[in-house]
Amino acid sequence: MHDLHLKNVRPLGEANCDILIKNGVIVEIGKVADQPGMPVEDGGNAIVWPGLIDAHTHLDKTTWGMGWHENNREAVLRSRIDFERENRIALGMDPHIQSMRHAIGLAANGASHIRSHVDIDTTHGLSLVEGVERTREALKGIIDIELVAFPQSGVMGRPGTVELLDAALANGCEVLGGIDPCGIDRDPKGQLGVLFDLALKHGVDVDIHLHEVGDLGAFTMELIFERVRANGMQGRFGISHAFALGMSDTVRAGKLIDEIAELDIAILTTGAPSATVPSVKRLREAGVRTGAGCDGIRDTWGPWGQPDMMDRARIIGMKTAVRSDIDLRHMLELVSQGGADVMRLENYGVKVGAKADFTLLVGETVAHSVVEIAPRPMVVKGGRVIARNGTCIVDMP
Amino acid sequence: MHDLHLKNVRPLGEANCDILIKNGVIVEIGKVADQPGMPVEDGGNAIVWPGLIDAHTHLDKTTWGMGWHENNREAVLRSRIDFERENRIALGMDPHIQSMRHAIGLAANGASHIRSHVDIDTTHGLSLVEGVERTREALKGIIDIELVAFPQSGVMGRPGTVELLDAALANGCEVLGGIDPCGIDRDPKGQLGVLFDLALKHGVDVDIHLHEVGDLGAFTMELIFERVRANGMQGRFGISHAFALGMSDTVRAGKLIDEIAELDIAILTTGAPSATVPSVKRLREAGVRTGAGCDGIRDTWGPWGQPDMMDRARIIGMKTAVRSDIDLRHMLELVSQGGADVMRLENYGVKVGAKADFTLLVGETVAHSVVEIAPRPMVVKGGRVIARNGTCIVDMP
Repeated sequence: MHDLHLKNVRPLGEANCDILIKNGVIVEIGKVADQPGMPVEDGGNAIVWPGLIDAHTHLDKTTWGMGWHENNREAVLRSRIDFERENRIALGMDPHIQSMRHAIGLAANGASHIRSHVDIDTTHGLSLVEGVERTREALKGIIDIELVAFPQSGVMGRPGTVELLDAALANGCEVLGGIDPCGIDRDPKGQLGVLFDLALKHGVDVDIHLHEVGDLGAFTMELIFERVRANGMQGRFGISHAFALGMSDTVRAGKLIDEIAELDIAILTTGAPSATVPSVKRLREAGVRTGAGCDGIRDTWGPWGQPDMMDRARIIGMKTAVRSDIDLRHMLELVSQGGADVMRLENYGVKVGAKADFTLLVGETVAHSVVEIAPRPMVVKGGRVIARNGTCIVDMP
Repeated sequence: MHDLHLKNVRPLGEANCDILIKNGVIVEIGKVADQPGMPVEDGGNAIVWPGLIDAHTHLDKTTWGMGWHENNREAVLRSRIDFERENRIALGMDPHIQSMRHAIGLAANGASHIRSHVDIDTTHGLSLVEGVERTREALKGIIDIELVAFPQSGVMGRPGTVELLDAALANGCEVLGGIDPCGIDRDPKGQLGVLFDLALKHGVDVDIHLHEVGDLGAFTMELIFERVRANGMQGRFGISHAFALGMSDTVRAGKLIDEIAELDIAILTTGAPSATVPSVKRLREAGVRTGAGCDGIRDTWGPWGQPDMMDRARIIGMKTAVRSDIDLRHMLELVSQGGADVMRLENYGVKVGAKADFTLLVGETVAHSVVEIAPRPMVVKGGRVIARNGTCIVDMP
């Protein structure tokens, strides 16, 4: 583990001081005396912010670093799923190489942790998970990666998928995923039954994709609430996207959010610009653990996205009508502490006793840094400088 | 006027060739023989695209280049208007200096034309217009600026405003603006009566801000349709924002769009991420002249925005669910030819006989350049290189 004397920085945007790191842990914040023999860095009066967290992405899907992927296909969820499953290998999307590119990009831009869904289906078995697991090993000490066993093509309609999810949870995936029990599987009772059985068997959390909108999504949420309560899964269930919470009936959405808070269900948002998305402000007020993620970036589904949680904070902020400085600060907390809350990270933050995982941000104030998609002159992981000015010490393959 | 032999470029993303410019006009596109004595530039195989057009912005409002403007005020339209009017001068927002910073930023990022609304109210009289007119003079040959006399604080509720609008149209403003005849003025018949009278008197086009949503905005549009028809103003009216066209009742929105097309009314969108916005695709299919703009950037209203129409193309593309390469190309056409259609520019485009106003874009394809917010190694205006790599030949004050 690493030692570092970081001078001339503004922790969390507060007054200029130093940070002292020993064995990868922050041991002092303030005016620090010179430390003979210890590595020293000058932070240039930048803001120090806890490591950014991409709490919802897909490391196995990106075409980042490949040639431009032309897309003139129809924009239908089911056909996007099928196209990707049938063509990803032929297109040259090696799950290890692509996940390396994606994860190194995130680290270079200040992220310290990733929760990545990885496709599991009867075409690929566990080969995509294995590719991303190689990346997780290769990037130890650079960025931490948590894996979600994700049945992208559905659970109930493709026999053999349940067994693959079971095997994935026994072989390195920490979280169980799911997807649109009504919209994709046409069998909410069936899929949710499988998810709760597997989660209880393996003692893992669940993080389900729920693109279902309006009344359909609310229906599925209510089925989830019943089962979280019946199985004692409070605090161990997450809903990604949760587009239904952006419904125009804000009274009904408010009641759903109240129940989400009561059951300590986590919400993961990507601030999808063209969809109805949850009000991050309303979730915060209700005390719901809420994280954010870039989702897929530049994949066969669509061209948008960057491996950059500051870019994502801007997208979510613009989408949810953030204007004030305090709300801008909350956007930055969403893409950092929010993800840590969802992933239940320990010793996270810029404080004495925490792991020295943080990024420097150039900006007059925290709000300014969010709007600017601030340059990141230095990223520190476990006390070690792992990136400078957007370039990681590990080369992209 | 300027001559230039530009080598090694891809006009509109097509095959690599040269462009020959004489007296500021494109005279040849293809394999061009060496021209003794003529300035030569190497385009590095970049795409050549017509000058970007910010067809809806507010040059007098930005805090760009000033210290960070902290904002912890309430987010209500009326109170934003009042705060800005009462504080802009005290905050140090000089209309000439700020509009210079904003317009130079746009030019540096590839824009050749701007349509800017400028506030006219009984507090400032015409002083803000005069400041922006100085900028227009100072930037002749760098970027073309069209001015809209804009009654930001309302027309009917503040006696004296009509006379100021009249004076502005007699003194350099080419277009007449308006704002929410119901929502701000509480008097749609009154404001629209004034606007049509002034437009007919001065022979100018109208471009009205219409933030009114849903049924209210549809009502105001119907009042506008009646008056465009009665006054023979077909082809000379524009509606900015037009949030009502993003209503969930797509059948009704479709009927409004059909009438907009029939009356040749122009639509200006900013793709406002947190609002309901018109479907650019539907407008295109209906043949509606549609331009786009950055709106205010980093002003007292809110922190977002860049003086960059490629950034805006990305925002509108994400907001309107663009995914395919052809739709990405349409986004780039929206922020270029679309604005030219609204402003009825002549001799615009990358073609023989057109004015040599264009930007270079780095990208494998046109779609790729939109997603990347492509670097712009060179911007040409009237055959003269006016910016390189994001820096204009005119310094920001």
